[in-house]
Order: sequence, then C-alpha cells, then structure tokens
Amino acid sequence: MSILVMKFGGTSVATLDRIRRAAKRVGREVANGHDVIVIVSAMAGETNRLVDLVGEAGQGSGPLYDAREHDAVVSSGENVTAGLMALTLQEMDVPARSWQGWQVPLRTDGAHGSARILEIPREAIDRKFAEGFRVAVVAGFQGVSPEGRTTTLGRGGSDTTAVAFAAAFDAVRCDIYTDVDGVYTTDPRIAQKARKLDRIAFEEMLELASLGAKVLQTRSVELAMRYGVTLRVLSSFEDNGGEAGTLVCAEEDIVESALVSGIAYSRDEAKVTLLDVEDRPGIAAAIFGPLAGAGVNVDMIVQNISEEGRTDMTFSCPEGQVARARKAMEEAEIEFRAIDVEDSVAKVSVVGIGMRSHAGVASQMFDALAREGVNIRVITTSEIKISVLIDRKYMELAVQALHDAFELERAS
Amino acid sequence: MSILVMKFGGTSVATLDRIRRAAKRVGREVANGHDVIVIVSAMAGETNRLVDLVGEAGQGSGPLYDAREHDAVVSSGENVTAGLMALTLQEMDVPARSWQGWQVPLRTDGAHGSARILEIPREAIDRKFAEGFRVAVVAGFQGVSPEGRTTTLGRGGSDTTAVAFAAAFDAVRCDIYTDVDGVYTTDPRIAQKARKLDRIAFEEMLELASLGAKVLQTRSVELAMRYGVTLRVLSSFEDNGGEAGTLVCAEEDIVESALVSGIAYSRDEAKVTLLDVEDRPGIAAAIFGPLAGAGVNVDMIVQNISEEGRTDMTFSCPEGQVARARKAMEEAEIEFRAIDVEDSVAKVSVVGIGMRSHAGVASQMFDALAREGVNIRVITTSEIKISVLIDRKYMELAVQALHDAFELERAS
Repeated sequence: MSILVMKFGGTSVATLDRIRRAAKRVGREVANGHDVIVIVSAMAGETNRLVDLVGEAGQGSGPLYDAREHDAVVSSGENVTAGLMALTLQEMDVPARSWQGWQVPLRTDGAHGSARILEIPREAIDRKFAEGFRVAVVAGFQGVSPEGRTTTLGRGGSDTTAVAFAAAFDAVRCDIYTDVDGVYTTDPRIAQKARKLDRIAFEEMLELASLGAKVLQTRSVELAMRYGVTLRVLSSFEDNGGEAGTLVCAEEDIVESALVSGIAYSRDEAKVTLLDVEDRPGIAAAIFGPLAGAGVNVDMIVQNISEEGRTDMTFSCPEGQVARARKAMEEAEIEFRAIDVEDSVAKVSVVGIGMRSHAGVASQMFDALAREGVNIRVITTSEIKISVLIDRKYMELAVQALHDAFELERAS
Repeated sequence: MSILVMKFGGTSVATLDRIRRAAKRVGREVANGHDVIVIVSAMAGETNRLVDLVGEAGQGSGPLYDAREHDAVVSSGENVTAGLMALTLQEMDVPARSWQGWQVPLRTDGAHGSARILEIPREAIDRKFAEGFRVAVVAGFQGVSPEGRTTTLGRGGSDTTAVAFAAAFDAVRCDIYTDVDGVYTTDPRIAQKARKLDRIAFEEMLELASLGAKVLQTRSVELAMRYGVTLRVLSSFEDNGGEAGTLVCAEEDIVESALVSGIAYSRDEAKVTLLDVEDRPGIAAAIFGPLAGAGVNVDMIVQNISEEGRTDMTFSCPEGQVARARKAMEEAEIEFRAIDVEDSVAKVSVVGIGMRSHAGVASQMFDALAREGVNIRVITTSEIKISVLIDRKYMELAVQALHDAFELERAS
C-alpha cells in the first residue's frame, strides 16, 4: 500500500467547516488507494493565544521562562485539531485515529521550543494500517524529548513534521495544503505577471524561501532535499486536480530547467560599511563574530580591494538591527575610521538552477536594471542566485523589470 | 517530607490572575514545609468549548462518536492550566514542573469518557521531589489507557484525581479549592441561617452530595472514604487561615457527632404509583428492571401492605423521566390497574451520623413538618438519613422548619 502524507496548516483547519473540507480531500486520496498520514497544525490563532498566555504567565522571567512548560502548553493546539480531524474522518466512514507526539513516539532532542527530530519509529502506525485503519492523523509541531517531556519544533514546525513522516514512511509524496496555490515566479502583489510554477528544484525553493517567499519553512525543504521527499504545495481553498500546485523536487525530476525560476526580494534591508578598516588576517572574524554575538543577521558581505593595508568592509542586515550592529562595531576590538549606514535599501535576487551552466544571467540582469536607471549598490552571487542591493524606492520596478527580462510569465 | 495535595477547580484557575492567586496559596504551603502535588482543572469554560467542538465534529454519529478522540481533545484544557501553573510557581521561585496524565503515568482502564483509575506509580514524581522540586502540577481529569490512549475520568474527575494522588502519596490532606467556602448545614439560598460545618463525616458528605449539595464529586468522596484521605473543602476567593473550610473526614475524627448534620433537598421529583399490582415473588424485579433499562433513576421505593395478593407500588424519580417511566411500565410484563403520577413533589432529607445511636430523630422530623402543616407523601429511611416526599410548594418551608427544629444554626 502506498503511503501519502498530507499536511494542513492553521488556516486550512481554522474552523470545523474547513476541517471537513480538508477531511474530504483526505477521503479522496484514501479512495484513490493511499494509506494517508495527515499532519495538522493548530486551528488558526490558537497557537498565538497559547503563546500569549505562556508569555504573560512567565513575564517576570522575560524570555527565560521554562521552555518545557511553554511546549507543554503550546502543543495542545495541535492535539485538539488532530482529534477533531480524526472524528471528522470517522464521520465520513474513513477509519482514522489521532496520534500525539508521545504516542508515535516522535523522538526529538531536548532543545525545547526548537527541537530537532531524532527518530520516527514506524511500528505503531504501521500496525494500525495493517489492522485496516486508513488514516493516521498526527499532531504536527511536537515530539517527545529523551526525558519524556513534550517538545515543540519551533514555528512552522508542522511542515517539518510532515516531511519527516514522509521520509520515515517512504511516502510517495508530501502534499502541503496552505492558503496559497503554489510557488510563484515572484510575489504577485508586486508583479501582476507572476506565474505559478509547476515544478521547482529543492535548491531554488531554498533560495526563494530564505529570500522571503514564505510558502514553506526552510528547514522542511532542507529535510525534503536530504531525504529525497517530493513536496507538493497546493491550496486548501481551491478545487485543484491531481496536477495542481507546485511540485518541489530533485533537479533531475525537472526535465527542462529554466534559466531563471524566480525573482525574490527583501524590502527592509540596510547597507552598513566600515570605512578604512585595517586589512589583516582575522579581521573578518573580528567583525562578524561580535555581530553574530549581538544577534545581527548579516546577509550579504563584500570586501573592497585593499590599499596600503586598509580596506572597506560592507555588509547588509535587516534595517531594524542597524542600531545593534553599530553598537557591536563600536565595542569590538577593531580599528576603523567611520561607519556608513544606508538604511533605505532593498535586496532583489534572481534564482535559477539553469544559471549553473549558463554564463549570461548576471549581465542580462544588470542590463535590465540599467535600462530602468536602477543603481546597484552591492552584488553577491552564488551558484544559483545573483543578489543586488538597490535603493528601496526602485524595488518594485526592479522586480517587474527582471520578471519581464527573463520572460518568467511564459512557461519554459 | 510531608506531602499535601491541593486541587483547584475551573473557576479557581479561570484567568492568569486567579492562577497567580492559587499559586500564592501553593507557595505558602511550600513555605510551611510541605511538598505539594497540585491538581488543576481546565480554565473555566474551556472544557465546555472543547466538548462542543467534539460534539459538532461528531454530530452525524450522535453520541456514538469515538470516545477516544473526545478524550484526546477534551483533556488538552487541563494540560494548558498545568503548564501555566508550573510557570507561575517558577516565577515565584518555587521549583515546580507540570505533569500530564501519560507522564506520571496515571493508569486507567479503557472506559473513555468515564475511565477508572487503576494505578498511580510514585517513582517519577518522588524522584523529582528528591531532586529538589517542591511542587508537581498535575493535569486533572485525565490518564492513559492500557492501549496508550489518553482517557478522561468524566465530569468532576479532577476531584477524583486529587483524592487518588493523596492516597497514592500518603498525603497529610487533600485540599479542594472551589468557589464555595465549605459544606453547609443546608443551602444558604433557602435557609438564611444555614451554617458552615467545620467537620463532616464521609458518610454524611456522600448523603448530602448525592442529594444535591454539589460541592464534591460523589466518586471522590467514596474514594477518600475507602483510603482514609482527609479532605478539606475551601474557597479560592477568601483569605482563609489554616482552620477554614470544611474538613471531610472519618467518623472517628469527629469528637462529638451532631445528631443531625444537614438538611438536603431535591426539587424536581415525581411520585409514581402502580395501583393494584399483583403481589408475587419477583414482582419488584419485573418493575424496576425495565425502569433501569429505560434509564429511569429510581430513588425512593415504597411497597404498601398486600391485601388479597394485590398491592400498590410507589417510587420516586426525576420529574423529567416520568414519560419514560410510564412507557416502560406499560410495555413491561406486569399487571396493574392504573398508574398514578404526582409530578409536583420534592424530597427533603435529614442527614446525620448521630442518628445511628439516637431513636428520636424521625419523630422529631415528622413533628416539625406537622407543625407547619406539611403533608408527608412517602417516607424512606437509612442508617444516617430520613427522607420524605412532600408537595413541592412546601419545600423551602420544610427545609427552614427542619433547620430550626434541629438547631443547626448553632455549632454542636
């Protein structure tokens, strides 16, 4: 019997009506011959309500309150949805039961609040499938620590739960039902011509996700890539057929890779330059160590050519972290003349597996931006991505121009 | 180290402020040198909300939906409170942690929705006390079945959880914090002179509880009696000292038993008489078997003197069950001339351990009612209780007259 994993996010199970709609989709897959593992999030808003209660109860300790109790409380939202989904399936004569993390047991490490999955033994659920159950409804986002306490996997952890189950049970596919109908070439709110992709490679998805296309949790994509789990992203709110949504899969499963798959952006960036830093071995560590210590998420890093043992060091970080970055630099043991901050910049990136074997993408990108008069402040490149920092006011223009230049509105 | 069990009901943990107030009481007992096991209910309203969700999800099956899923969902309310209480105690520098049913584990049978406790192993919690934890916060109302599913003990099950923990841990006492400040000689809404009892015997409490003084769940009192657990009922909302509330204890712990401890009542009763029934061996079974089968809660039973092989059989039951009782009788294999129903009656009972060794209580009761012109329809007696069925319109009058007659406003 082939096993299919289906994951429903919080908006997809926000009410009993929506749970029923989701259960119908599950029933259809059962009728198609699958045994199904359903991973559910808490009903929309419930996790926030519980997190708020915990925060208020532990407010005297600030963020230092006992994460084990946080997890014990917050995980209950998924338990509720799992039971309701199992009942709803039973109402449709689909043999189903719910599983909480400790019942599977989904074993994690003891890092409460952001636990990592160690093991998902198949025995208990396999036995139920053998007895004739067709659906295991699993509470997402939670597991059990070596000490027997309930853990949570961190925000978005239900995606990770789903992929981990798909890997453990050799599932034919892991379908992620959410409130968007797939992965787009760029944000449709910015470029009207944005097109839904039929397929995208794991590597591209990772670059798009970490750059702001918040469809899938990054960790779940990494996990899917490592274990070769084919993901499908699709909407709970549309009557999509078998080939709907976007398939996130291995590169070799994409017959004809597009040169460029998508345009990502990140709006609220700042560009920070340390002017006239001494250029000596270890200077990068002396700068970025303290920044990491201060919790600054440094993204792009560019070092200019050195002259007479001095250089300029430029990096980007979220605009809201500039004050922290400045303080960290002033307290660090480095010499520099001044800090220059430009805080109204944005990052735009072109992502595509195809550019690995194609040289012209960068120049094509710079041409397109030049034609629109967009000045490029910083450039960084990776194997499948080229990112530029530009004035924030040109961000939408740049995304649209690049979408046009690479003809992303047309299926490749 | 002496262990104290403290149980807080739903209204006592309805908000974070109330949880803090409860936690302060726990902190005081810890300062007094106790290790404390705290049993918590769900925040007021939460269990109803979850029960409603389950009922709606399973509505197609009526009451036949999967009780295991009901329990999986409904038990989550207590998990939330337990975590919040543990956090709140930690904020007050009291070393505490939460325990869910499966973590203890509190083992029950598999009767989901009304499971019975089989075993509470001490090891895990004892180990934590030995490590320096001073408080174990346990989610009430729940356990784990032999199959590893979460079970619930039925409504009011948190009282039972508390008593079971007190028995398993040889607790010095089990304090039940609720929204009343103790057990009264009768309902203060009916008799203004009603007085809070300092002590009451288990047997008396059972008679009062099953007769309508809904302070403690009957099952928890039975359990306390069996294991000799001293219960104390007291209010969460008053600043009561060490001797406040009502102690529910063994008869031998009450130095001077009062003749009568309390007056109980039950308003919505009906009196049903089968006229001219054949009087043969097995006739009682032929009548009350079908009534039990129809779900009629028969309370008092009186059989009149038999004449010429015929008799009248009278019983009382809740007024709402009269139609069911009538149908069951008409379909039963018994011969009778007619059914006579009086449906505006009420039951008033005098309860007291002292009457075991005292003969005059019944006549004193009948005298008091006669002085007020209250006609008695049915009388039944047990060792520590005398109950009468009277016209409902005289109920308040009867309760007040009896309260006066036995001088219950005065401490014995």
